[in-house]
Amino acid sequence: MVRGEKIYRYEKVAADLARLIDQGTFRPGDRVPSLRGISRRMQVSISTALEAYRLLEDRQLIEARPQSGYYVRRLSNYGLKEPKPIRPEKSPTTVSVDELVQMVIRDSRNRNLVPLGAAVPNPDNLPVDKLNRLLAAVARRKGVQSISYEMANGCEALRVQIARRLLAAGCSAHPQELVITSGCQEAVALSLMAVCRPGDTVAIESPTYFNHLQTLEVLHLKALEIPSHPASGISFAALETALKKHRIGACLLIPNFSNPLGSLMPDEQKQALAELIVRHDLPLIEDDIYGDLGFAPERPPVVKAFDKKGLVILCSSFSKTLAPGYRIGWIHPGRFQAEIERLKTACTIATATAPQLAVAEFLNNGGYDHHLRKIRRIYMGQIWSMTQAVSKFFPPGTRVTRPAGGFVLWVELPEYVDSLKLYELALQAGITIAPGPIFSIRRGYRNYIRLNAAFWSEKIEKALALLGHLAENLK
Amino acid sequence: MVRGEKIYRYEKVAADLARLIDQGTFRPGDRVPSLRGISRRMQVSISTALEAYRLLEDRQLIEARPQSGYYVRRLSNYGLKEPKPIRPEKSPTTVSVDELVQMVIRDSRNRNLVPLGAAVPNPDNLPVDKLNRLLAAVARRKGVQSISYEMANGCEALRVQIARRLLAAGCSAHPQELVITSGCQEAVALSLMAVCRPGDTVAIESPTYFNHLQTLEVLHLKALEIPSHPASGISFAALETALKKHRIGACLLIPNFSNPLGSLMPDEQKQALAELIVRHDLPLIEDDIYGDLGFAPERPPVVKAFDKKGLVILCSSFSKTLAPGYRIGWIHPGRFQAEIERLKTACTIATATAPQLAVAEFLNNGGYDHHLRKIRRIYMGQIWSMTQAVSKFFPPGTRVTRPAGGFVLWVELPEYVDSLKLYELALQAGITIAPGPIFSIRRGYRNYIRLNAAFWSEKIEKALALLGHLAENLK
Repeated sequence: MVRGEKIYRYEKVAADLARLIDQGTFRPGDRVPSLRGISRRMQVSISTALEAYRLLEDRQLIEARPQSGYYVRRLSNYGLKEPKPIRPEKSPTTVSVDELVQMVIRDSRNRNLVPLGAAVPNPDNLPVDKLNRLLAAVARRKGVQSISYEMANGCEALRVQIARRLLAAGCSAHPQELVITSGCQEAVALSLMAVCRPGDTVAIESPTYFNHLQTLEVLHLKALEIPSHPASGISFAALETALKKHRIGACLLIPNFSNPLGSLMPDEQKQALAELIVRHDLPLIEDDIYGDLGFAPERPPVVKAFDKKGLVILCSSFSKTLAPGYRIGWIHPGRFQAEIERLKTACTIATATAPQLAVAEFLNNGGYDHHLRKIRRIYMGQIWSMTQAVSKFFPPGTRVTRPAGGFVLWVELPEYVDSLKLYELALQAGITIAPGPIFSIRRGYRNYIRLNAAFWSEKIEKALALLGHLAENLK
Repeated sequence: MVRGEKIYRYEKVAADLARLIDQGTFRPGDRVPSLRGISRRMQVSISTALEAYRLLEDRQLIEARPQSGYYVRRLSNYGLKEPKPIRPEKSPTTVSVDELVQMVIRDSRNRNLVPLGAAVPNPDNLPVDKLNRLLAAVARRKGVQSISYEMANGCEALRVQIARRLLAAGCSAHPQELVITSGCQEAVALSLMAVCRPGDTVAIESPTYFNHLQTLEVLHLKALEIPSHPASGISFAALETALKKHRIGACLLIPNFSNPLGSLMPDEQKQALAELIVRHDLPLIEDDIYGDLGFAPERPPVVKAFDKKGLVILCSSFSKTLAPGYRIGWIHPGRFQAEIERLKTACTIATATAPQLAVAEFLNNGGYDHHLRKIRRIYMGQIWSMTQAVSKFFPPGTRVTRPAGGFVLWVELPEYVDSLKLYELALQAGITIAPGPIFSIRRGYRNYIRLNAAFWSEKIEKALALLGHLAENLK
């Protein structure tokens, strides 16, 4: 039997029956012909008729009643109401900053917009085919494992690979000491839950990644913003002072290639930080999601490399380097491991199995280091191109970061530019950007924007020219 | 070129080099031969040598230094310490109940134990091959989509399928009104975060699913346990009284085939409940994870079907019916949609893409209703067999639920049986069970256990005979 032909036949039978239901020949509650009847009338085998009926059941058009036959469902899916405009597109100047964050993220999924907003990697620079071949192979070869619950701490094969890679960041972790999460966002959220109670204050860099601010807010935590330098990151002196003045429950920092600054904390300062937190018995949540994307030949160490007391909770993921849609992150939780595993169970039970196995395979055999060298070169080049374009097209007085890694640029525009207004104008012109105020709890950085440099083309260059023009017009 | 041969060659070259490094021929920091050198010495092409070196890089044995060549890494993975026994197996009578919950879940992943503990479905009853074929097809056909971030509310194709299926539960939802989550656990956690603030009190059934208790605890919520009937679920009168006496922030209930009771709330009571919560302006989180697994021919409606004010947040997943390891759950959040989407972004950004697409395909074409009819019949039969075995082997005075759906049995043993002690003895005999105290915040149900009836075999029957014997010996 030719499988293709069979599919065609039962689908045709199903389509014919669907039409009869649609036209009202069979109405809700009516009994439809038996399998034998259909088989006779439509000249198909009983099994073809059965497959057709299963398809109609899947589509919610008919239902089987035991010992009785098949009936047209009383509630057909045609009864669905037309979409209500659930989220009317309000003008960004009138929406809250929370909604703005949602919009920036949502815009980044809109392929019709020039993607200068969210820090989404360019799929052209990701090993799409190789990863998906591995995912397909996992699905074929590890059927039962792939559909089964994983342990709360994740697949061992993946933890082994991550433990090996951690050596390059200066850390020696046993695979049993790692916990796999649904991306870096869950890693950070669980870490905050592990070390803070509602109402606690968390020291963060300013500016910082807007979704961290959201996470702090939904966990009922307060944020203390510490000024940060575009080259070296958080001001150590300011952090020290803050620790003396305030009761701080934890630090949440991005020491390697911070978002949005692209800054890199010097090694000596990492060491000093590791010592400082011991003196204050202060947990540090270290977000290293961009750590593999530095522009220097050597990968920088993490603060965790200098951590002797298990006070640093290291979080990262493969969302910026391999596959955001796989949602694979991880935590090296130090002394908070038991609590992190308990939280993982209570919040999501475990991370999806098959993507974990695919990433583990890729790390083991896929040429990850080679891939990293390639994309680091690309992103460095594009950061340079974008900086050139900004200097060429943006109004006089514009300033821009010189990131040491990652793929975002932080741009300070002249005082007269309201970046929320610019966001709105850019969106009307088909461009999405990330406006400065979403990077601060106090909603400062009114005349700043963050640009995603993961994409580069003539179209992007033109978009930057237009953006510069729109900014200048706000004078 | 034969691909198989090529793999063999570069892997052999890599293995030879790895041996040299292992034996100390090349030591950490040493420069290894150039690609040209290897190509000459080992009689392979430059590209084969390059692939071998990439493999060694993946395995963290060598590293490339720009303009200089390849070097043995200073930190080789051989430097990893031997596993420390991180989680010593303490006697369950001395561990906290939190640890006991973790142990019950962990034991359920141990294939050497008879799986009577966690409510894990039997992979033999899941459409493993079909689902994994779909996952493989998704990976092949939807490469870029599968590795890319999804929207916070999830894949549209899946939301459409869920909206259609909701009709059978008496609900009419637009696909835009649904949010996909990482399993039902995340659905419940986000729902609690959406409607409660730390310190709020949540009304729950007693006994109830232990992981809900954990979720309440990690979110700093208080639980008020309402007595529940093994047949009809939560006592409506007791809930009404509690609402008058206490300030309650939300209800979290499992009206259809509750875990562990298997009870089914009658339709009239569902309607009355929907009206009661309106009078108190009280959000109800409805966990319907077992809703598709009833033993009657008709699927019961959800409370959400009677909800006119958007106060019910309906949560479910495909973990009990299709693939726990895919971690695909969903929320129909009613009036709390914007907040739920914001929380989803702040906690995990989005759910993994490929498993969503695979489940959507299965719902559309895989014969889900046929599958459900099959497994409902199986689970009903096994519940019956297990009940028989319990009545045959367990000590006199044992009582047992008669579930209306799902696949767990709740067993009350004679007063003299301490279920924590029984848990310990069973574990020593290679059997895992769920002891009663983990189903209550007050750690009651000392002489109760929950049995997973998703598996059935002669071995299980023998395990039940042994369990009965162990229980009797505690007299």
